[in-house]
Amino acid sequence: MEFHYKDSACVSDDEIKALSSSLSSYIEHLREIAEHDTYDEPECSIFLPYDNDLYEQIIRAKEEKISSRLKYVVVVGIGGSNLGTKAVYDALKGHLETLNPNQFPKLLFADTTDPESISYLSNLLTTETKDFSEIVINIISKSGETLETIVNAEAILQHLKAKFGENIIHRIVITCGIDSPLWKSAKEQNITILGIPETVGGRFSVMSAVGLFPLSAIGFDIDKLRMGAQDMRKTCLNKEMSENPALLSATILFKQAKDGRTINTNFIFNPRLESLGKWYRQLLAESIGKNGIGLTPTVLIGSTDLHSVAQLHLDGPKDKVVTFISAKTDSNESVPNERIFPNIRIEVTGKKLSDIVSATLESTKEVYKKKKIPYTEVVLQNISESSLGAFLQFKMLEIMYLGKLFGVNAFDQPAVESYKTATIDRLKQE
Amino acid sequence: MEFHYKDSACVSDDEIKALSSSLSSYIEHLREIAEHDTYDEPECSIFLPYDNDLYEQIIRAKEEKISSRLKYVVVVGIGGSNLGTKAVYDALKGHLETLNPNQFPKLLFADTTDPESISYLSNLLTTETKDFSEIVINIISKSGETLETIVNAEAILQHLKAKFGENIIHRIVITCGIDSPLWKSAKEQNITILGIPETVGGRFSVMSAVGLFPLSAIGFDIDKLRMGAQDMRKTCLNKEMSENPALLSATILFKQAKDGRTINTNFIFNPRLESLGKWYRQLLAESIGKNGIGLTPTVLIGSTDLHSVAQLHLDGPKDKVVTFISAKTDSNESVPNERIFPNIRIEVTGKKLSDIVSATLESTKEVYKKKKIPYTEVVLQNISESSLGAFLQFKMLEIMYLGKLFGVNAFDQPAVESYKTATIDRLKQE
Repeated sequence: MEFHYKDSACVSDDEIKALSSSLSSYIEHLREIAEHDTYDEPECSIFLPYDNDLYEQIIRAKEEKISSRLKYVVVVGIGGSNLGTKAVYDALKGHLETLNPNQFPKLLFADTTDPESISYLSNLLTTETKDFSEIVINIISKSGETLETIVNAEAILQHLKAKFGENIIHRIVITCGIDSPLWKSAKEQNITILGIPETVGGRFSVMSAVGLFPLSAIGFDIDKLRMGAQDMRKTCLNKEMSENPALLSATILFKQAKDGRTINTNFIFNPRLESLGKWYRQLLAESIGKNGIGLTPTVLIGSTDLHSVAQLHLDGPKDKVVTFISAKTDSNESVPNERIFPNIRIEVTGKKLSDIVSATLESTKEVYKKKKIPYTEVVLQNISESSLGAFLQFKMLEIMYLGKLFGVNAFDQPAVESYKTATIDRLKQE
Repeated sequence: MEFHYKDSACVSDDEIKALSSSLSSYIEHLREIAEHDTYDEPECSIFLPYDNDLYEQIIRAKEEKISSRLKYVVVVGIGGSNLGTKAVYDALKGHLETLNPNQFPKLLFADTTDPESISYLSNLLTTETKDFSEIVINIISKSGETLETIVNAEAILQHLKAKFGENIIHRIVITCGIDSPLWKSAKEQNITILGIPETVGGRFSVMSAVGLFPLSAIGFDIDKLRMGAQDMRKTCLNKEMSENPALLSATILFKQAKDGRTINTNFIFNPRLESLGKWYRQLLAESIGKNGIGLTPTVLIGSTDLHSVAQLHLDGPKDKVVTFISAKTDSNESVPNERIFPNIRIEVTGKKLSDIVSATLESTKEVYKKKKIPYTEVVLQNISESSLGAFLQFKMLEIMYLGKLFGVNAFDQPAVESYKTATIDRLKQE
C-alpha cells in the first residue's frame, strides 16, 4: 500500500510533526497492547489478526458446516456485523456478480428489514437449492438481540423450515457476544456458536469471527487477510511519523477538520471498492462523531461521480478534505485499433482502459491541487485478501489516532441508543 | 406523493412565506414556459413529459429494435446520461436482481472505464446470448464525445463484433445531441439515432430519449412515468405555497443552508431507492454547487445506515438538514408466530416487516425532532413508474427554485471542464 500526501495535503510538515508528537505516548500504549495478546483494552481489535485460537475455531466451524455443495452463505447482520464482510466480498467478487451470475458459492446479505428483499432472498434460497447443505445462515449480532437481525433471521428461517424441515437449524452459525441472549438460545438448541470478545466493537470486528467465518466459508483466503493486517499493524505502530501512514492520515484529517474541512470525501477510483468506502463511513462517523464534533464521510466512485459532484467540489464551499483511493490492475482490456467511431476521441485509439482510469485520476489530482483542495492518496498494490486486510488495519489505526487527537472516545456510540429504545418502545405498544 | 415539513423543518411559516413570495415571478415564468411547449429556455425539460413527438419516436425505435427475444439492453453513458435511468430501473427491478437472477430483459450499465467491469460485461453478452437480437447497445452522450462513453462503447463493441460480425452495428441505438460528433458518425453508418434537445442538460434529461428509450425497451410503462411527471408538474407550478412541495422543499433547504446546515442527507427508508438518491445527488450538487456556495448531498439507507452514521447525526456537528424518503408497501412478509428464538425481542413476534420499518422510521423522526435536527419527509404511494415519474419531476422543479433562491444558474456546470480538458490533454501526450 502506498500513502501520498506531500504537496497535496495542505498541512505543513511542522504541523504534522507537532500533532504526531502529541500522540507518541499513545503509540507507546498501543505497542504495549500489541505485545499483550489479550482482549482487555478498547484497542484490543489489533490483536485479532494474530489470534491463532480464533483462526482455528473458524477453520473447525468451516470444516463442520461447509462442503463442496455450498451455494449460499447468508450474512444476517447490520452495521458493524456486515459492513467489513461486505467490503471484502464486494471487492473480490460481489461487485461483479450481476455480470457473472453463475459463479458459486455466493454471500448474500440481509441487513435492514426490507420485506421485499427478504421475500426475494427466501424465494431464491428455496427455489435454487436442492438440499439444505447448499445453505449456511450466519446470524451475527454482538448484543445478541439486534432488532433487524432477529427479525430477518426469523423471517428467512420460517421459509427454509417450510421447505427443509426442523433440521434447518443445523445450517445456522451464530456469531454473537458471549452470554448474550442469542448465545444462550443457541446453546440450548445445540446451534454452532462463534464468540465476539466483549471489548471488540462492531466497527472494529472485521478480523474477528464476524468477518472471518463468512469470508472463509465461501473460500477466501482469510490467512492472507490476517497477514495483510499483521504487516500493516507493524507499519502503523511505527513511531517514525514518515513511516506511519495511519499517523500521517489522522493528523492531516484532524488539521483540516479544525480548519473547517469537516467533510471527508473518499473518492475511490475503482467501483469494486465502494463497499470498502461504506465500511469506512461507519468507522469514521461512529468513532469521531460525538460531543458536537466529527467529520462527515462521503463515498464517491471515480470517474463516475466526477460526472455528478465535481462541479460542487471544485467550485462549492471549501468544506472538504479528500482521500483518493485506487488499486493497481493488470487487465489488458483496451480500445481497439479498428474502431466503430474512429474519428471521435482519436486519442484513446489502442489505449488500455486502465491507462484511461489513471489519466483521469492523475488529471483530477492535478486540478484539485491547483484549486488547493487538500487531499491524500492511498494506492493498493492490487485487490486481494492481503491488500484489503492491510487497508482495513490501516484505517482502524488511523481512527484510533484521530480519536485521541479530537479527545473523544473512539470506541463508544452513546447516541445511537435513543432511536433504538424508541423503536423497541413503539413496537411494544403496537 | 406526500410531503411533510410542519413541526420538523425548523423554519417558520413566515420565513417560508417570504422566501416563496420572492419566487412568485419565477413561478409565473415557469408557467409560461409550460404553456409554450418548446425547447427554448433552460427550464424546458418541464416540457419533456408532454412531448408526444418524442414519445412516438421512442415507440418507433422500440418497435424497430426490440423483439420478445431481448435479454440485455446495455446503457453506455455516465452522469446525466445514466443516473435517471438507473434510478428508475433499480427501484422497479435492478435492486432485487441479485436475488432474482433469471428474469429478463435486464438493463446493464457501463459508466466508468473500469477494465474488469467491461471485460465481465462483454463476456456476459457473448456467452449468455445465442443471437444478436437478444442485445441492444444504447450509447448515450449529449456532447457526442464523452470520454468514458466512447471508450466503453468501443471496448464492448469489439467483443461483440468478434462474435456476431460487422452487423452488430444494427443493434446500436445512439442517443446524443443533434449534430454532435456521435450524431454525424451514426448518420454516416445508418445507425439508429435519438436526439437530445440542445437546451436540456444531462441532469434534467431523464424524461427525454436518454431515459425513456432504455426504460421502454425493457418493458417499463413510460407513459405512466410521463403521467406521473405531468401531474407533479401541475402541483409544483402551483402559486399557493402550501400546495407546492417543490417550493416548500426549496425554501426549507435554502434557509437551513443559510443557517449553516449545508449537508443535505437523503435518508431513504427503502433500499430499492438508493439509485434514486444518487440521481438527486448529481442534480443538487451540480446545479447549486458554484461560486463558493452549495449543499453537499449524501445518500443513506434506513435502517441500514442508522447503524453507521446515526451517532454522527445525533451528536456530531449541526451541519445537516435531512430529507426522509420512503414508499408504502403492501408486502405481508412477517416474523412468524412459531419462532426459532422465541424469547428474543418478543415484541416482534407475528409483526409484519413493513410495520417494523415504519416503527423504525417514526422513532428516528421522533428522536431527530427532539434533537432539533431539521427534516422534511417525502412518502411515495408505492414504487411504480407513476410515483417515480412524480418524484423525479418534483425534485427537478425543487432544484430550479433552489437555484433562484441562491442566485446561481442551476443549468450550467462550468467547473467540470477543467478535469475533462486535463484528462484529454494527458491522453493526447501519452
